[in-house]
Amino acid sequence: MMFFTPLKWEKDKLVILDQTLLPLKEKYLEIRDIETLYEAIVKLRIRGAPLLGIAGAFGVYLGIKDFRGDKEKLLKKMEETINYLAQSRPTAVNLFWGMERVRKKIMGNLHLHVEELKEIALQEAQAILEEDIRISQKIGEYGSKIIFQQDSVLTHCNAGGLATSGYGTALAVLFKAHEKGKKLVVYVDETRPLLQGARLTTWELQKAGIESYLICDNMAGVVMKEGKVKKVIIGADRVASNGDTANKIGSYSLAILAHYHSIPFYIACPVSTIDFSIKEGKDIPIEERSPEEILTIKGERIAPHNTKVYNPAFDVVPHHLITAFITEKGLVYPPFEKNLHKLIE
Amino acid sequence: MMFFTPLKWEKDKLVILDQTLLPLKEKYLEIRDIETLYEAIVKLRIRGAPLLGIAGAFGVYLGIKDFRGDKEKLLKKMEETINYLAQSRPTAVNLFWGMERVRKKIMGNLHLHVEELKEIALQEAQAILEEDIRISQKIGEYGSKIIFQQDSVLTHCNAGGLATSGYGTALAVLFKAHEKGKKLVVYVDETRPLLQGARLTTWELQKAGIESYLICDNMAGVVMKEGKVKKVIIGADRVASNGDTANKIGSYSLAILAHYHSIPFYIACPVSTIDFSIKEGKDIPIEERSPEEILTIKGERIAPHNTKVYNPAFDVVPHHLITAFITEKGLVYPPFEKNLHKLIE
Repeated sequence: MMFFTPLKWEKDKLVILDQTLLPLKEKYLEIRDIETLYEAIVKLRIRGAPLLGIAGAFGVYLGIKDFRGDKEKLLKKMEETINYLAQSRPTAVNLFWGMERVRKKIMGNLHLHVEELKEIALQEAQAILEEDIRISQKIGEYGSKIIFQQDSVLTHCNAGGLATSGYGTALAVLFKAHEKGKKLVVYVDETRPLLQGARLTTWELQKAGIESYLICDNMAGVVMKEGKVKKVIIGADRVASNGDTANKIGSYSLAILAHYHSIPFYIACPVSTIDFSIKEGKDIPIEERSPEEILTIKGERIAPHNTKVYNPAFDVVPHHLITAFITEKGLVYPPFEKNLHKLIE
Repeated sequence: MMFFTPLKWEKDKLVILDQTLLPLKEKYLEIRDIETLYEAIVKLRIRGAPLLGIAGAFGVYLGIKDFRGDKEKLLKKMEETINYLAQSRPTAVNLFWGMERVRKKIMGNLHLHVEELKEIALQEAQAILEEDIRISQKIGEYGSKIIFQQDSVLTHCNAGGLATSGYGTALAVLFKAHEKGKKLVVYVDETRPLLQGARLTTWELQKAGIESYLICDNMAGVVMKEGKVKKVIIGADRVASNGDTANKIGSYSLAILAHYHSIPFYIACPVSTIDFSIKEGKDIPIEERSPEEILTIKGERIAPHNTKVYNPAFDVVPHHLITAFITEKGLVYPPFEKNLHKLIE
């Protein structure tokens, strides 16, 4: 079951949820050409790493679907499409990955006719979408086993369906447990500076009909102390091969607070998030972002002029503070160095 | 040295800093009558428990200073003034305390003439102001001894001069260390939901010329891990006799994070903050405040409609996570049960 659909393919068009209007307005856009898709990506109407990969794949098909001409010109049209869409968000690795998968599919099937090549481009995009859904569902399925009846969970940022094809990672676990009839309460960190928890996670949980309470990030400790939270589940941006996990700023503090209160701390992520080329957390580069993210909220300035700011986008949860990883291949417990590796053996 | 003056008495008028315009605008208001003072209190132009006590005391004088008539009518005028100002902020305990002190002074000196009674009312208000400054200065003096050259401190909320007569508690320590030529860096938690750190503490530190960095509350852990912070100093709303300390929400999380990183954690507060009638932290009632404080920022809504919220205004730092108290009578180390009591013996 999906509680909302941030992206779907309908006959000859992409239909996407305009995420810039959330959480106060739910509006879907129909995208029939790459110019409209380009605009949607630039304006962040569509966002989230996995979702951009899927959008990129469909984008390649949108760019060639009305093409008439020979095979050589089709390939030229495909390259133009990819180059054009690549400029919409040059740092979005998944966008490139999604387009590249479609390109490879076409290049590996050049014996086919033009119309057949278009058709397999569409099929590949659909396959990417279905894979993403399947992985999320699997994460949800495995994760739901650790959720008890009447459980209460704290989550941070938005590891939900809006960044993926609709089911997410940390939130997939909650969605699946809820589907199975487990009654849940979820505490949602608002997640400063960009408030993804307040804006997106609360919205997703409401769509799913899961009871939730929004809290400020600095309330996590007291919520744990009062026994309101039985486990913490968050997503991951990047996992090192020893299990150290980079995720949205605040994850590290949360892991220490959970440790202090003897509350299990879980990371839900697809296996693709584990970067086996990275040995440990200190090797993961941490991006520092614009001071304006902290200094202004919705365009309103909250601090004096000339205020200096420290604004790391992520922090790293050391592996010894993590109870287990929840992946599409099952739960992974310590020792992580050894057991994460088994996932790809 | 005072770096700014939230309230002062000038010949026949109060001059107050309009705190509603901070941090972007610094404007002083002249208050010559109780109607103007009433408006300033209602609109929160003047705020902070100790400061309201001082304002109330001067308010009583403002209400009677131009009175012409006999002693009986003077007392009636005084009572009218107190009743009128009491309505400006009916929950502000210190406001009543300040007015009561002036009333008592007058009632204890009824042998004096009308003009003399007015005069001692003004003197009492000035005495309250001076006491407040002296206490803050003393806290600063004792606290500055634990600050090293090139030290770095994290603070939460605003335990500064704006809530007092200009010098504060936690910030008094930093002001005094800075005056003594110690070079400091201060990390300031923005302090959601009301952002007192972002709005007020950064402003105060800038006025004093102390280097500071604003961070989101959820960045405290990583700032500690990176070695950027050598000690934490915060204020207190109420201290139980065993040392358990209620303070702005987030203080509890911060104490655990400091403990995990072996960073000393100090509470700076006047002895009057210690409530010896309360045995331990769990007996301190914690106010839950309006959901709107979290759901909107500067009038802009950040979460979906129908979002449920948990919004405790304070939390309690257990005494075993506190390194020492910094008071106007000196530093107090464990065992707190015994050593706090010595302050009033």
